[in-house]
Amino acid sequence: MESKSYMVQMNGNGVHSNSVHSFNINGDIYSAKMKIHKKRWNIRASEMSKNTLNPIRAIVDGMKLSPNPDKAMIALSIGDPTVFGNLPTDEKVLQAMKDAMDSHKYNGYAPSVGYQKSREAVANFYCSPEAPLEADDVILTSGCSQAIELAISVLCNPGNNILVPCPGFSLYKTLAVSLGIEIKHYNLLPEKSWEIDLQNLESLIDEKTACLVVNNPSNPCGSVYSKEHLQDILAVASRHCIPILADEIYGDMVFPEHTFYSMAPLTNDVPILSCGGLAKRWLVPGWRMGWILIHDRNQAFGQEIREGLVKLSQRILGACTIVQGALEAILNSTPQEFYQDTIGFLKSNSEICFSALSSIPGLNPVRPSGAMYLMVGIEMENFPEFENDVDFTEHLVTEQSVFCLPATAYPNGECGNPLYPNYFRIVVTVPEDMMVEACSRIREFCQLHYRPCNQESNDLDQ
Amino acid sequence: MESKSYMVQMNGNGVHSNSVHSFNINGDIYSAKMKIHKKRWNIRASEMSKNTLNPIRAIVDGMKLSPNPDKAMIALSIGDPTVFGNLPTDEKVLQAMKDAMDSHKYNGYAPSVGYQKSREAVANFYCSPEAPLEADDVILTSGCSQAIELAISVLCNPGNNILVPCPGFSLYKTLAVSLGIEIKHYNLLPEKSWEIDLQNLESLIDEKTACLVVNNPSNPCGSVYSKEHLQDILAVASRHCIPILADEIYGDMVFPEHTFYSMAPLTNDVPILSCGGLAKRWLVPGWRMGWILIHDRNQAFGQEIREGLVKLSQRILGACTIVQGALEAILNSTPQEFYQDTIGFLKSNSEICFSALSSIPGLNPVRPSGAMYLMVGIEMENFPEFENDVDFTEHLVTEQSVFCLPATAYPNGECGNPLYPNYFRIVVTVPEDMMVEACSRIREFCQLHYRPCNQESNDLDQ
Ligand SMILES: Cc1ncc(COP(=O)(O)O)c(C=O)c1O
Ligand SMILES: Cc1ncc(COP(=O)(O)O)c(C=O)c1O
Repeated sequence: MESKSYMVQMNGNGVHSNSVHSFNINGDIYSAKMKIHKKRWNIRASEMSKNTLNPIRAIVDGMKLSPNPDKAMIALSIGDPTVFGNLPTDEKVLQAMKDAMDSHKYNGYAPSVGYQKSREAVANFYCSPEAPLEADDVILTSGCSQAIELAISVLCNPGNNILVPCPGFSLYKTLAVSLGIEIKHYNLLPEKSWEIDLQNLESLIDEKTACLVVNNPSNPCGSVYSKEHLQDILAVASRHCIPILADEIYGDMVFPEHTFYSMAPLTNDVPILSCGGLAKRWLVPGWRMGWILIHDRNQAFGQEIREGLVKLSQRILGACTIVQGALEAILNSTPQEFYQDTIGFLKSNSEICFSALSSIPGLNPVRPSGAMYLMVGIEMENFPEFENDVDFTEHLVTEQSVFCLPATAYPNGECGNPLYPNYFRIVVTVPEDMMVEACSRIREFCQLHYRPCNQESNDLDQ
Repeated sequence: MESKSYMVQMNGNGVHSNSVHSFNINGDIYSAKMKIHKKRWNIRASEMSKNTLNPIRAIVDGMKLSPNPDKAMIALSIGDPTVFGNLPTDEKVLQAMKDAMDSHKYNGYAPSVGYQKSREAVANFYCSPEAPLEADDVILTSGCSQAIELAISVLCNPGNNILVPCPGFSLYKTLAVSLGIEIKHYNLLPEKSWEIDLQNLESLIDEKTACLVVNNPSNPCGSVYSKEHLQDILAVASRHCIPILADEIYGDMVFPEHTFYSMAPLTNDVPILSCGGLAKRWLVPGWRMGWILIHDRNQAFGQEIREGLVKLSQRILGACTIVQGALEAILNSTPQEFYQDTIGFLKSNSEICFSALSSIPGLNPVRPSGAMYLMVGIEMENFPEFENDVDFTEHLVTEQSVFCLPATAYPNGECGNPLYPNYFRIVVTVPEDMMVEACSRIREFCQLHYRPCNQESNDLDQ
């Protein structure tokens, strides 16, 4: 009972107050000024946790999703290429993991920024004459998500703003808002294959703008930017001296007639944090292997940003060491055919989807050039029964058991771009027969509900 | 050149100003008010990154560590049980990973809080009649570090404070300070096997105190608290209605004559987030598999904290899915002998170390009861050549090529406990022969530098 050698008497009124108490410690009597505090449990979740918002969850959780019991559910909504089993990763990738395991060398802690050899492997893989990379320019992270988190965290203070695409991947907003950083949405132009509305982009920049996020190839658009467009974007960043967070997780996932240009080699002055990972191209999103490539030939980031990234990486440490240990072999041994097969499948499936939906009155799919997505415009005025994209996709589930993510989740409602108020996103990784069946059900659904209004008002709305 | 259909002229003086510019868009001339902003690159690392401090790095990086070229380096400083290869994980653990890989079922995204089955496996493993657990009470994380990060993030707002042990694991401070949360160190008492100074603890509590961190078994002390002491700690938390973050990553890693008590079963009213993981007991820290167990039988956390944790888990997603897929088999198939062998080795090695150092004049090791550490007090007054623990351990490297972490890194300097100004930590996971050799070198070092001052002043200093 030694540890109970003092007693605290407290008045039980629950009011915060200071009062004097007696302690009996080792036989002596002490008098001490004690602060008396709350007596009731009153635990509130932090502001940060309350401000961590996932717009997709918010929309989807609020939807009435009751599939037609007579039709098997087809989910075209899940941005995970592995769910249907038709897109396994390569055997070499799995072998690399087993080798890493069998070596017994990768069970301990790695440096917080990752093993030097693994960083070197990533640097070599993404190195180019115009934008050279060394191991020190690479920080390994727990998925591309943590890469984005570190990049935003190192560049922005609360009160800053970042420019993010609309429609665009929702995580930028989720992370920024939880950190007290403001989001400004710049518009993408569906009629220009989702290029950035540069004028709109430039108009958003102010003295609080800490970072421009560019996602190419794009989720949810499936767009792939030309070299010229990327140069135009870089010119804006250069004029205003805004660093770029290039989300290039879908880098190289472009259809054969297109070319993926990484942003870094296209500029000499704009500093870029390029975020990527194994998730998409190697089809292993669950493994949580991501990276930041630091491109700073103009010394605009300098040591400060590098050191900041290293410090932030020490907060929770990064990727699983087994995956880190396998990384060099994964990058260097995955056969070209694997990449080509994946791309071939994505292209063929998106072509099937695009041509099927193109011929459906009332729908305006935008042809994708890469990634795993396709956006479909809805002529809402010709579907008078439905209020918006959420309503439309909800009924598509009820009647046809086909679920597509309404673009509101992406979140067009908020960025208020009048050019595309009503879209839905289709994930093109599902098996071909499922895609064909889904498109025919979407056709049936549209035919049933299409009520064309006159051509003129339609033109005006467009 | 369609995308260059507008031109912006800007005055190049670099001064922030608003001015009117002409745009040529689609052949029309628009006039627009344009904000002109910074023209020089001026990228600063965020406050958060600057405030992410790793006290161990700060101390160690500042030390002059030049080993004696005639003696092979022995590092007793590294808190990673895998570095010397003498403590491999169990074959069953590796087999579970291979099975998870071969199943091809664990490559995709898991829910942000982890697979239901894996959460269930953890719940069953740690369930007790007094503190029952279900899958919903478990959140899987990227290592125990992320568990601690989520727990602190959900319980605290900037301006709050948390109570952390001194000496103690430095991550609590690193995470809290980076989030604008204040740290208050409570003292541990070396002469009472590092029990908490409860009076000191209680005196630190104020209306801003959002969480009490208790680390048992302890890094760096190797202490294991009795049931009674844990109940006394819980009584303090209960009186002041402070929730507990129980860092139990070394749970069950206690020497045979001791018993580990998890905190949750010992209280009916104090809500507890118990943080743990595979890192230590299963000897795979690199795999980054951790968890939070939510204990809230009194409904003091309620839905709010649970939802907050789920939201925070969505920021970057958690643990690698392969490890998640292997988790059930790891927990259920690892043989008892593996745990016993590990403990047996740790106990035997710490006994070797403790008895060797006990007989060295000038050193006062504190006998550990678990975990992987042992703290050694230095009678600084009897080593007049050295200023403090940092100076002492620095010279130990220079002369004997033995490196132990000075306790200043833990960071006793700051919490200002007069009871243990000068300690160093020994990690007892090194091979036995290395431990024996290290102890004999420490003896040689101490014999060379020990200059006993008179007994009286020694007593006073103690
Ligand atoms: C554009 C974009 N960036 C980043 C990510 C996150 O990647 P990871 O799963 O590696 O965290 C995704 C995932 O869907 C994405 O679509
Ligand atoms: C007390 C304590 N808590 C937490 C951790 C972090 O564990 P993990 O490696 O699973 O993040 C450590 C690691 O040394 C530790 O000593």
